[in-house]
Amino acid sequence: MIDFPHIAEVCQSTPSKLVMLVVDGLGGAPHPDTGRSELEVANTPNLDALASRSACGLTLPVLPGITPGSGPGHLSLFGYDPIKYTIGRGVLEALGIDVEIREGDVAARGNFCTVDDQGKLVDRRAGRISSQESVPLCEQLDQIEVPGLEVHILPVQDYRFVALFRGDGLSEDVTETDPQILDVPPRRVEALNAAAAKTAEAANALIEGAQEVLGDRDRANMVLLRGFSQLPHLPQFGDSYRLNPAAIAAYPMYRGLSTVVGMTVIPTGSTFADEVATLEEHFAEHDFFYIHYKPADAAGEDGNFEAKVQALEAVDAYIPRILDLEPDAMVVAGDHATPSILAAHGWQPVPALVHSKLTLGEGVPAFTERACAGGSIGSIPATQLMFLALAHAGKLVKFGP
Amino acid sequence: MIDFPHIAEVCQSTPSKLVMLVVDGLGGAPHPDTGRSELEVANTPNLDALASRSACGLTLPVLPGITPGSGPGHLSLFGYDPIKYTIGRGVLEALGIDVEIREGDVAARGNFCTVDDQGKLVDRRAGRISSQESVPLCEQLDQIEVPGLEVHILPVQDYRFVALFRGDGLSEDVTETDPQILDVPPRRVEALNAAAAKTAEAANALIEGAQEVLGDRDRANMVLLRGFSQLPHLPQFGDSYRLNPAAIAAYPMYRGLSTVVGMTVIPTGSTFADEVATLEEHFAEHDFFYIHYKPADAAGEDGNFEAKVQALEAVDAYIPRILDLEPDAMVVAGDHATPSILAAHGWQPVPALVHSKLTLGEGVPAFTERACAGGSIGSIPATQLMFLALAHAGKLVKFGP
Repeated sequence: MIDFPHIAEVCQSTPSKLVMLVVDGLGGAPHPDTGRSELEVANTPNLDALASRSACGLTLPVLPGITPGSGPGHLSLFGYDPIKYTIGRGVLEALGIDVEIREGDVAARGNFCTVDDQGKLVDRRAGRISSQESVPLCEQLDQIEVPGLEVHILPVQDYRFVALFRGDGLSEDVTETDPQILDVPPRRVEALNAAAAKTAEAANALIEGAQEVLGDRDRANMVLLRGFSQLPHLPQFGDSYRLNPAAIAAYPMYRGLSTVVGMTVIPTGSTFADEVATLEEHFAEHDFFYIHYKPADAAGEDGNFEAKVQALEAVDAYIPRILDLEPDAMVVAGDHATPSILAAHGWQPVPALVHSKLTLGEGVPAFTERACAGGSIGSIPATQLMFLALAHAGKLVKFGP
Repeated sequence: MIDFPHIAEVCQSTPSKLVMLVVDGLGGAPHPDTGRSELEVANTPNLDALASRSACGLTLPVLPGITPGSGPGHLSLFGYDPIKYTIGRGVLEALGIDVEIREGDVAARGNFCTVDDQGKLVDRRAGRISSQESVPLCEQLDQIEVPGLEVHILPVQDYRFVALFRGDGLSEDVTETDPQILDVPPRRVEALNAAAAKTAEAANALIEGAQEVLGDRDRANMVLLRGFSQLPHLPQFGDSYRLNPAAIAAYPMYRGLSTVVGMTVIPTGSTFADEVATLEEHFAEHDFFYIHYKPADAAGEDGNFEAKVQALEAVDAYIPRILDLEPDAMVVAGDHATPSILAAHGWQPVPALVHSKLTLGEGVPAFTERACAGGSIGSIPATQLMFLALAHAGKLVKFGP
């Protein structure tokens, strides 16, 4: 939709069904002791068998060396150039706690912080106070009245919260208050243009209110706000590809991302088992399903190689149930790598497969980084994976006479 | 010329000779029963031997998943970004029947169709009537007079024809009449801007004339027009690369494409044997030859795996004769894949080789999709193959000091 300006010309709506399973943090990296990655160690007979009759390759989420957050990683898989289309930090943080963001709202990511008696920062994260301590503080801050608009303070986790501004004439074009260094006071919010004056004023009023509420405390006696942002205007996924797309995700942020690109979010439970049951139940209703698997990323972020191996083995067990639905094309991909040796998202290319009745004679022996590198898809930008998926589902016609 | 704006700076005219053999629909896909592609099954000793002393790789005609028509597929091999430079459907259809299109002409692709007594479409292709039935109808339509300009109706095949409008002040900016669905009447041609009013009027006059001529018939009693287009203004191949290029093609459409990019078309016969004889005869006269081989595509389009294998074996037999001419660089490439399992053009990357005295130590064991994937060229956009060909022919100088 993005890389290829003629995509609308070549897309056709068909009854064929496409399932895209996104294994969050799918890719890994070889362990220094064994030389084998998480996927290479994991016992994943179903993914391996599927890879042996699929077109396989590697996807690059952004550019070599560039590590994507969850936003760019997913946008890229959905076909949006992640360099051109961005989602602000405040909005993404709000989506991650299932907050409804409306057109015109401004969301900021907030931190509790600690300042000394001269107002200078001594801890930008207020000792990473627990949710137990921060949730009541958020409730107090939520009472602050800012004339002319609604302001909500919504706890995220530990020292983090979302500040949501709702009203007419708001703008995301304001500066952040976090100076990123200690021993200076937090900055004031400044408008970057005349249209943003009201937002800057409201944000500063909120901060002054917070100072009053929190000022007597020893720690978490001040707040920092950054990532002021509004809902981006993204081309809608369904319109662009002529699909009726649905998203199934247990975690709020992925539901939020799906909403932003215009997918229908189907309510589901909190586990991948729930997600698969939801897919089965609603399979007749849409022609595209994005289904999200989180645990691989979480284990990788923890730097827990063995837990990531187990998370990959766990998702493998669900592959037969998804294939039993007989989707015309099935994609298994990842939004980014989360190598356990990094204990964080990584920049590494991510294995991907596209399976259809046309790929039965293709394939690689295993669904791993190394095996997929030798697959027929080769190494492609993640933004182009949707084209292959649509082609295999018979949803693309010839380009040009 | 296209991807690389500095190409003229680095091109030099030399006496060296470059032959580009385009095997139409060259690439294929593994058969589900055997896991082997047409090229892998075919016995092609000459191509395999050539691949073993050539730089080999895969070319991507447009983007992963995007299936090109013959126009974009060829433009891409010639170095034109197929997303930026397009050829209209009417023009290409006219080129395909060897109609001379002049600057300013508008060509449309026409279909005979069948409408009911209320003028509503019941068959958009008029039962795919044969040429035997359609040619006399085209002759009748060709008699229709449209005031102020020339209009010609030229049979293509079966239910298809070309409508050619010639005169001053014509424009391609008009709408199509094919509603793409049944049970509604054909649309009228509408001008998309003021400069296109005359063309819309002429097209509607032609359609009214056709209604009169055909109205009493049971089927093929109406026409549909689409793909109104004029000759595109493309950078000229010879100027851009500093070549004196010639095209040898038995099929009219490929001669037409060559004319559009400014190659000299050398008359030839109707078989590849004729084409090779023409190449031999005229080898002294040009420094670049594009020679086109059609049967592999035709067999792939028919979904006939075995016939495609035979077509590949047949072209293989001509390789020694071409090499006997001792071109300084020889390219074997395809405009797109036509996998038999698709029975249509495909999006798959296409094997390519560039042979010169500099590649004698390179090579892969066989000229197949899989072997070429491991070749020294890697996987590149088809638009960049000309750079390699020119480099190997000694026709490029250093870029930058």
